[in-house]
Amino acid sequence: MKTRSYAHHFSENNIPFGIASSARHAAPRPVTRLGNTVFFLENLAKNGFFNDITGLPHEALQQPTLNQFAALPRSVLRSVRRKVQDEFKMNGLASVPDEAKEDIEEVTMHLPVSIGDFSDFSCSLEHVKNAGRIIINDERPPPGFFNFPIGYQGRASSIVVSGTDIERPLGQFRNPDTKTADAEPIIYGPSRKMDYELELAAIIGRPLPMRQRLRATRADDHIFGFALLNDWSSRDIQGFEMTPLGPFNGKSLGTTMSPWIVTLDALEPFRVTGPAQKLPLPAYLEDPARATYAIRMQVEIDAGGNTTVLGSSRVQSLYWSMRQMVAHAVSSGSALRTGDVLATGTVSGPEEGALGCLLEVTKGGVAPVRLDGGGERAFLEDGDVVRLTATAGDEASGVGFGECTGRIVASRPFEEGEKHACPECGRP
Amino acid sequence: MKTRSYAHHFSENNIPFGIASSARHAAPRPVTRLGNTVFFLENLAKNGFFNDITGLPHEALQQPTLNQFAALPRSVLRSVRRKVQDEFKMNGLASVPDEAKEDIEEVTMHLPVSIGDFSDFSCSLEHVKNAGRIIINDERPPPGFFNFPIGYQGRASSIVVSGTDIERPLGQFRNPDTKTADAEPIIYGPSRKMDYELELAAIIGRPLPMRQRLRATRADDHIFGFALLNDWSSRDIQGFEMTPLGPFNGKSLGTTMSPWIVTLDALEPFRVTGPAQKLPLPAYLEDPARATYAIRMQVEIDAGGNTTVLGSSRVQSLYWSMRQMVAHAVSSGSALRTGDVLATGTVSGPEEGALGCLLEVTKGGVAPVRLDGGGERAFLEDGDVVRLTATAGDEASGVGFGECTGRIVASRPFEEGEKHACPECGRP
Repeated sequence: MKTRSYAHHFSENNIPFGIASSARHAAPRPVTRLGNTVFFLENLAKNGFFNDITGLPHEALQQPTLNQFAALPRSVLRSVRRKVQDEFKMNGLASVPDEAKEDIEEVTMHLPVSIGDFSDFSCSLEHVKNAGRIIINDERPPPGFFNFPIGYQGRASSIVVSGTDIERPLGQFRNPDTKTADAEPIIYGPSRKMDYELELAAIIGRPLPMRQRLRATRADDHIFGFALLNDWSSRDIQGFEMTPLGPFNGKSLGTTMSPWIVTLDALEPFRVTGPAQKLPLPAYLEDPARATYAIRMQVEIDAGGNTTVLGSSRVQSLYWSMRQMVAHAVSSGSALRTGDVLATGTVSGPEEGALGCLLEVTKGGVAPVRLDGGGERAFLEDGDVVRLTATAGDEASGVGFGECTGRIVASRPFEEGEKHACPECGRP
Repeated sequence: MKTRSYAHHFSENNIPFGIASSARHAAPRPVTRLGNTVFFLENLAKNGFFNDITGLPHEALQQPTLNQFAALPRSVLRSVRRKVQDEFKMNGLASVPDEAKEDIEEVTMHLPVSIGDFSDFSCSLEHVKNAGRIIINDERPPPGFFNFPIGYQGRASSIVVSGTDIERPLGQFRNPDTKTADAEPIIYGPSRKMDYELELAAIIGRPLPMRQRLRATRADDHIFGFALLNDWSSRDIQGFEMTPLGPFNGKSLGTTMSPWIVTLDALEPFRVTGPAQKLPLPAYLEDPARATYAIRMQVEIDAGGNTTVLGSSRVQSLYWSMRQMVAHAVSSGSALRTGDVLATGTVSGPEEGALGCLLEVTKGGVAPVRLDGGGERAFLEDGDVVRLTATAGDEASGVGFGECTGRIVASRPFEEGEKHACPECGRP
């Protein structure tokens, strides 16, 4: 799968963080990025680059994840970002020691954090209305929708980094062939309704112990930054399993996250006001500023040698903001741990074409979408590559998220995936 | 809260594992237990106790969790258990060096594993029928109930060790006072319907990467052992939030786990056949032996100075077995990580009094249960202590789980829980 560089997303206005390795940097380590150049923070530190920053333990730059770094005080993280910006403005890339630099083509990006808990929400009013109309012919939002951001816990260990293949899952679902009288009502086999979901994920920096209180207006203190997230969904498996306990195997087949975490500091210039909210809210959800971000997201598919844009939507059209979703997640006593991921759910909006999943685009598969260069899709086919991208402000802002991609690969027969280690000694 | 010892649960037939600390053992470390004596495995190893066991890295006995130990090959874990049994049979407790021994009263028990993902299932047919009848006046099980063990992902960071207080959560729920015309339909405040759930949890030992296949008949290879789990539930918060994405804040307020993990080796003599299953199953769920365990579970409440048994049920009456639930959890591609927890859901059974939560006992609160010594309960009140216990086979088997307890404490007002650290430097 070809990875595009999206150099223009990574101007000196961005300075995101990630985890990379390369031939010269065998161990995955914290990095940042300017254009197509990746900087290993450990090497910068060794060259005295961060000497005037107090409270930055070098150990945090020598970890295989960003967790220790992300938990540092906001002031330290801000100083690191500013230092990179200032050096670049004054001296360009020349000031960066050679051993700290790699071209983006030379590195492998890894999952940026070790993830504690993963919660996924359903913040878009248009998504719940569209999905309701398509699935149960009732576009009224779920009962609690206007009271709080509804959500569920996802499977943390199923989150993989952009570029990882997603195997079409095996599962049980209702037989769509209801015409034949002797058709089995429930079948077991490869999912026939594979979908993507275009989402934005908040990654927790500073932790919060259990049983603390948190207002939406202070939730930003705990958000390290945002990344893109594709919450791949098997609509047939999910449809059969989710009453009454919610989605399970229809979601845990794999969830793709982009490798670059864009900080709240980088996004600050793009802070805007979200939609008015219908109901008065409890104190923990109140946010008079209705703070959200002008982030435009896009989903496209590579199929048959062509790329087709399937949807383009704006984060600021979400009914619930990221900080409201963080505040709600802890409102009954939950902790936040560094590396926790909280995602928005499908970002759909009221505009033409602002639909964040195929379920919505194809009305549940009954109105297949035409692909550029020919062909059509009701749901995803094997070999399809789905790419999410996003930029803050307009395309020229210099602040973007790069891409979050994954390719659907065919299900292997059940037996082919069986690998029996000896139950006694653990050896294969 | 008084902790009982349950010495008779920990005969030489058991030899469970846990994590303890004490005045003499300041750092939490792996332990086992015989009667009321706790053995620190690290000290046993230093005294050459395990010298004839190959493949037991001492480092695994010097960790603050059991994860590294639990991931060892089954043959190594079995040798450790057998060695303790043999020494005890030959020499009694006298053979154990003094520095390795502590009385149970001298130690603090900790959460035994660092938990990766937490999945909770709904394996009891009686529970889903009872809950359906009580909540929606329809005792038909959920659509997929006979096809697979239905489940949801829970919040891993909300799992606490037995003895931890559980604060009554704040949340939003439907106003039960529907008589007054001007009553708010949704209120925000302390939950009024706090409940417990009597559950058994499987703790994963040997991991399984993503996209492997696993048959129920081989799932035991990945189960390190079982513990008790109280899936505290706020029925009003849960009731309002769970359509359509399942339980969220109504569950993540806190989940209590017992500190001792009883191994499958200890439970082997109590293996029995579970109930016949109604439908033909896909290969991954097929289990001709219908293997489960004769484990009797009990839940009691301490209130007003008296203890009342609220329910007593048998694990072997669960429609789905623990190995089926593990196989289902990975069937669409999920990984298993050492320390993952998969719980059965409320263990209720067909017998008189075999009800595992107050929702069932009190028919949703409309038929309060009388407490021994006076008083009654519709749902839990502040100060109530709920205690789960379980034994394999009969009371005299010598193999039990000890207890899993927690006390409900009053909600503090929202503001009292607010602790603002400086968002810049992180200091309070």
